[in-house]
Amino acid sequence: MMASTSYRHFKVSVPQEFVTHVEINRVDKVNVFTEDMWMELRQVFDDLSEDDSVRAIVLSGAGERGFSTGLDLAAALSPGSLFNPRPEGIADGARYAARVRKFAVRAQDCVTSIERCEKLCSAVICVLHGITVGLAVDIATCADLRLCTSDVTFSVKEVDAGLAADVSTLTRLPKIVGSAFGADEALRVGFANSIWPTKAAAFHEALRIAVAIASKSPVAVQGTKNFLDWCRDHDIATGLRYTAVWNGGALNTKDIPHSIRAIQVLYTE
Amino acid sequence: MMASTSYRHFKVSVPQEFVTHVEINRVDKVNVFTEDMWMELRQVFDDLSEDDSVRAIVLSGAGERGFSTGLDLAAALSPGSLFNPRPEGIADGARYAARVRKFAVRAQDCVTSIERCEKLCSAVICVLHGITVGLAVDIATCADLRLCTSDVTFSVKEVDAGLAADVSTLTRLPKIVGSAFGADEALRVGFANSIWPTKAAAFHEALRIAVAIASKSPVAVQGTKNFLDWCRDHDIATGLRYTAVWNGGALNTKDIPHSIRAIQVLYTE
Amino acid sequence: MMASTSYRHFKVSVPQEFVTHVEINRVDKVNVFTEDMWMELRQVFDDLSEDDSVRAIVLSGAGERGFSTGLDLAAALSPGSLFNPRPEGIADGARYAARVRKFAVRAQDCVTSIERCEKLCSAVICVLHGITVGLAVDIATCADLRLCTSDVTFSVKEVDAGLAADVSTLTRLPKIVGSAFGADEALRVGFANSIWPTKAAAFHEALRIAVAIASKSPVAVQGTKNFLDWCRDHDIATGLRYTAVWNGGALNTKDIPHSIRAIQVLYTE
Amino acid sequence: MMASTSYRHFKVSVPQEFVTHVEINRVDKVNVFTEDMWMELRQVFDDLSEDDSVRAIVLSGAGERGFSTGLDLAAALSPGSLFNPRPEGIADGARYAARVRKFAVRAQDCVTSIERCEKLCSAVICVLHGITVGLAVDIATCADLRLCTSDVTFSVKEVDAGLAADVSTLTRLPKIVGSAFGADEALRVGFANSIWPTKAAAFHEALRIAVAIASKSPVAVQGTKNFLDWCRDHDIATGLRYTAVWNGGALNTKDIPHSIRAIQVLYTE
Amino acid sequence: MMASTSYRHFKVSVPQEFVTHVEINRVDKVNVFTEDMWMELRQVFDDLSEDDSVRAIVLSGAGERGFSTGLDLAAALSPGSLFNPRPEGIADGARYAARVRKFAVRAQDCVTSIERCEKLCSAVICVLHGITVGLAVDIATCADLRLCTSDVTFSVKEVDAGLAADVSTLTRLPKIVGSAFGADEALRVGFANSIWPTKAAAFHEALRIAVAIASKSPVAVQGTKNFLDWCRDHDIATGLRYTAVWNGGALNTKDIPHSIRAIQVLYTE
Amino acid sequence: MMASTSYRHFKVSVPQEFVTHVEINRVDKVNVFTEDMWMELRQVFDDLSEDDSVRAIVLSGAGERGFSTGLDLAAALSPGSLFNPRPEGIADGARYAARVRKFAVRAQDCVTSIERCEKLCSAVICVLHGITVGLAVDIATCADLRLCTSDVTFSVKEVDAGLAADVSTLTRLPKIVGSAFGADEALRVGFANSIWPTKAAAFHEALRIAVAIASKSPVAVQGTKNFLDWCRDHDIATGLRYTAVWNGGALNTKDIPHSIRAIQVLYTE
Repeated sequence: MMASTSYRHFKVSVPQEFVTHVEINRVDKVNVFTEDMWMELRQVFDDLSEDDSVRAIVLSGAGERGFSTGLDLAAALSPGSLFNPRPEGIADGARYAARVRKFAVRAQDCVTSIERCEKLCSAVICVLHGITVGLAVDIATCADLRLCTSDVTFSVKEVDAGLAADVSTLTRLPKIVGSAFGADEALRVGFANSIWPTKAAAFHEALRIAVAIASKSPVAVQGTKNFLDWCRDHDIATGLRYTAVWNGGALNTKDIPHSIRAIQVLYTE
Repeated sequence: MMASTSYRHFKVSVPQEFVTHVEINRVDKVNVFTEDMWMELRQVFDDLSEDDSVRAIVLSGAGERGFSTGLDLAAALSPGSLFNPRPEGIADGARYAARVRKFAVRAQDCVTSIERCEKLCSAVICVLHGITVGLAVDIATCADLRLCTSDVTFSVKEVDAGLAADVSTLTRLPKIVGSAFGADEALRVGFANSIWPTKAAAFHEALRIAVAIASKSPVAVQGTKNFLDWCRDHDIATGLRYTAVWNGGALNTKDIPHSIRAIQVLYTE
Repeated sequence: MMASTSYRHFKVSVPQEFVTHVEINRVDKVNVFTEDMWMELRQVFDDLSEDDSVRAIVLSGAGERGFSTGLDLAAALSPGSLFNPRPEGIADGARYAARVRKFAVRAQDCVTSIERCEKLCSAVICVLHGITVGLAVDIATCADLRLCTSDVTFSVKEVDAGLAADVSTLTRLPKIVGSAFGADEALRVGFANSIWPTKAAAFHEALRIAVAIASKSPVAVQGTKNFLDWCRDHDIATGLRYTAVWNGGALNTKDIPHSIRAIQVLYTE
Repeated sequence: MMASTSYRHFKVSVPQEFVTHVEINRVDKVNVFTEDMWMELRQVFDDLSEDDSVRAIVLSGAGERGFSTGLDLAAALSPGSLFNPRPEGIADGARYAARVRKFAVRAQDCVTSIERCEKLCSAVICVLHGITVGLAVDIATCADLRLCTSDVTFSVKEVDAGLAADVSTLTRLPKIVGSAFGADEALRVGFANSIWPTKAAAFHEALRIAVAIASKSPVAVQGTKNFLDWCRDHDIATGLRYTAVWNGGALNTKDIPHSIRAIQVLYTE
Repeated sequence: MMASTSYRHFKVSVPQEFVTHVEINRVDKVNVFTEDMWMELRQVFDDLSEDDSVRAIVLSGAGERGFSTGLDLAAALSPGSLFNPRPEGIADGARYAARVRKFAVRAQDCVTSIERCEKLCSAVICVLHGITVGLAVDIATCADLRLCTSDVTFSVKEVDAGLAADVSTLTRLPKIVGSAFGADEALRVGFANSIWPTKAAAFHEALRIAVAIASKSPVAVQGTKNFLDWCRDHDIATGLRYTAVWNGGALNTKDIPHSIRAIQVLYTE
Repeated sequence: MMASTSYRHFKVSVPQEFVTHVEINRVDKVNVFTEDMWMELRQVFDDLSEDDSVRAIVLSGAGERGFSTGLDLAAALSPGSLFNPRPEGIADGARYAARVRKFAVRAQDCVTSIERCEKLCSAVICVLHGITVGLAVDIATCADLRLCTSDVTFSVKEVDAGLAADVSTLTRLPKIVGSAFGADEALRVGFANSIWPTKAAAFHEALRIAVAIASKSPVAVQGTKNFLDWCRDHDIATGLRYTAVWNGGALNTKDIPHSIRAIQVLYTE
């Protein structure tokens, strides 16, 4: 049990057996992300990924104002930042480009850590409310489910900041082209899975789903999550072949007859 | 003409010229699928695929309770079933895995036979009503169009049964993550093409569409169906190239000037 | 500035700085496309692609009846047309096939020129109203945004003409299977981005969006557009890698600190 | 045991336990292939694929003159043949094209059946001698190993016959561009694995390899063969992932400690 | 007939019916490539691609010293060159990067024009002798066959020049990692198809092959060339499918029975 | 400078500026790999990857008997090993499969760390001598160049051990199918780049190449290495596009005019 783990910018708790709640915990700055928070985010999800007692994760932002305002713009303007190149620092553009590539790969990896989290098993359910900007949208695209409040305002501000600096949104969610949209459009294009009147209501539903997932066979949940990610990236023949090979290992479990019998009881009652 | 063909679990009829109706015909068990029904399903569609008089197919389930409850759970629990492995039978996990892979590839092929059906030409229109569970959803994902009744209840139960045993749904329909959903959500995520108040109304519309398709140039319908499947699996450049090469053969037909003249008449009148 | 350029079938104007309006200008025939118009369409977009003063393009059809009725059917029936093969002309089917492939590749390239238009930078916003048939739908699929009037009627007539002669629609928009649909279905399946009561209202909104895009960093807009196209065709790992490499060159610009400071001012006010 | 199976054009025998010898048996016509022989070839390999007593297969051609002269040219010229289209038969080029596609897919499948043969386990070793033309080369490309005599003469005659009618060679062996080549060039470009002075010597070596393969863990041989085919068609990351998932099922066997102990004994002696 | 066409840097002649000889014609500078020569190279091959009288092309370099020394280094160092960026010109690295991308895409397209040349039909046979450096190797990788003299010296100098500026070599020929190699290594890794003692002997053989290719059915040669390129870029299933669809159009020709009868005569004599 | 770094199983030294020598240092057991050595191998290459003073790496095995005998078979047979599953430990095959997948992914990553090593810049040159078995071949496939002694004996023993447990060889080197081969066959199939009479001679040549690479522009070497890996995994159009985008950042360097001038001096002298 990871109850004793402590992080600087994230609050990690266990509201129910097998269910973990990760809260972005920088309420005074609307959960804005500094570079060390990116790194810690990856640490949190890598730790959870190694913990057998974690089967479902709810991810939310502290406070009432919003999930997160994303990248810290003030830090981005500071001297030496990659986002504020200056003549003396970039005497050689090729070496600057190498720095950017290295940073981008690491930043992408921090965000992708949410998707990679595939222990025995760990679905990630994201609760999105209020201001949700840029990097915060990138993070949300890596979750398995996204529950929104009706007041959520998504804002993909990278273009406004002169950047196409993608760490996930453009890659994983190519459908949304407007730079700002609300809960209804998010639902229409399939980004939001459902809409709730308040943050508390959305969180309550996220917890209910997490508990339901945690009660199922972890073998089956892990397989399902793995197939959905695989099939998104491969053609149908490759997808079917992969699932057939996976199940050569995964069907060899007592969870199946056990689970089938449980369903049959439900039907009979 | 295949009028005389008889199957054990399927009723195959010809309601209109060039249109075939395939009905899952096990009404007492809500059209539940035993393993021999999978095999027969493939036989039905392979036969139709060789029959020049078949240009469009309507697929539905007999009775009022539902399209199908999918996999036969009682059979899955029987001794020797792959879904109920037992110590003595699986002394060697690798040989069990080989059995599972072989079974999975064959099961996937049975379901895929619906999609593969591409004679001169055979669009498949699925009518979905009432209980539609697991394998039944897999089957529906392979059709070209899905018409639902408003009372349809889809249920992707594999996870509840401890399985991620995919034969089509996770591969072909990665968007739906809930394990149960109705007509409205099906329409929203693009799984259902339209919703109808009763099974009779949905079937009537399916037949109308089938007749319309059957009246067009089979060369053009076959090409269109083939391109849609190809483009789903390939990038845009590969898709465009393939259609250009295909049409090197397919444009060489009197169907085209004949069809264009027919349209012009319509416009003139 | 390209103010003096004149085309035969298209009217090109500059309603605002950095914004170009391309109008299909054959109002008497509802903007039907003859083969020389395809070639000229490519010329228009290739020219715009080389013009530094073009940052956003609005594409619309002249007149009130519709955006375009697509392929010229009368021309398609004329002697020697590829769509009307005749015995003496196609004594050798293989050589006829080579002619078709060559024509198809060129026709696809004409339509794709709209998507390829990626100067410093050139988003393409399409205004669709009234009758919009066949080739006109192909053209619309290549735009970045599609604004529709509520009276628009899309019609994918190729099958009715005995053809599956795809130059874009089946490849880029595999979701729509009906041969005719209106604004609401277009919105639901994600083909239309928004619906407007009149052509004037849709055009007004298109212009507003074009001006907004033109006011942003061209480097950032070009990158965003390029990533969206790339990510549509590649898996996620390839998508993320490409954006990281691209930004090795693209972050090296004063646009970024300049844009960030502009945003901060907005927030502060 | 399949000892009693009899085929019309192929002689199937069991020279050693677990090893099967398939001989193309039409010595008077230098093993030329008629269309019914293609179909029977698939039947032979599909049958072997279901037979647990088959772990390695040697494929050779009867007689001294050569492995096979490939496609039967006389039959190809007969009335109604796809290779001899005539005006009255191909009134509609598009329907002729559909016939060709259907034939080509079936012909490719006949040849591919050799590669698909992946029972518990069945490596295929091909002995190539003398005249080896066209379709015979296609067949050889599907084997796992190719042992040649020094007098072998490969001839890819399709172009000379006015055809680019590929059923395997161009797809699986894109390196060889000359239309005729001998044992040395075959070895240099990696098509031949080794060269032997006589057919008897090559066959003897093929049998020795077959016996060696048949003595190994069938689980390991099947996996190796499957990975080689998979990795040829996928990028490295996809290849590594697939082998990791496969081994989730395949390492769960007593064959491994048993085999390791056998190797250790060898080393110790 | 293109006999009258004249180019500035290339000599184009017709040594035999259906065979064209393209000679890089800047003998005083060992056929070094200036930027306008790249553009003209594309023009030459685009022109040949439209000329029905061209069925095979021999490409060689004038003079005795070598095929070509590749990129003009003196020009690369001139002010304003992309290869010599300077502070005042690249005040904004992102705009410089956009210039490079645009140039690279155009340069790659010039070289690729050789491969793209696929009229009715045009195989390209390259004769390589003496000094063959950098861009010259890029050009050679796009030919269908490469005949070398024993004195040829390949030199992939890009790295020595501080560049990884690939326009073809690294993409099409990833096997060679040394920066300099001779005829023997070229043959061993499959880059050279054969080695000849003198340039005259290599040219004579190239011409012999060109005449042989030109005497075959252009339909079959075009198909073969197209399949080889397609199969290099796609997996086996996609390769086989493409060839089946292509032949739907390409088998519909009298060339086939005509060619088969010609072969039979040869056998009978 | 990493001179002070010490590892348990590897000796890391700096024979020349910018050149690092990594020696597998377990001479008493012919450099056999225990599981902790895999992990340390990754640590070594991850460390080198972060070190700016490393531009080329020579990897060799200590002692005269061989490069490495690969996996430690004795450890593989110990209780609790994944390679020796036992009934009580694998009561649930699906959970065992999850353990295997997790182990395999980590093991593959250890070996892949060699290929991933792409600092400013780090080509890896492998010296292979004597006994080189299983995992040792996997490791060698990840190097950029492989220099062999004439007495090297490669042995891909996984199948003999009942395993198809691939961590690199089958994926990266699908050409070699024999389970044992020497220097000549390695050279013929392109696995070995050159053959040397003694280990000392091979090492001397490896060092010479490493020094030569280290003397070039690191920007150019890094790009070249990166392109070769990318192009191996992608089709030609994707490869060309990627290199064009990369060079948008990488051409912006004074290394290029500086390097070109150095070459010109060489030519002039």
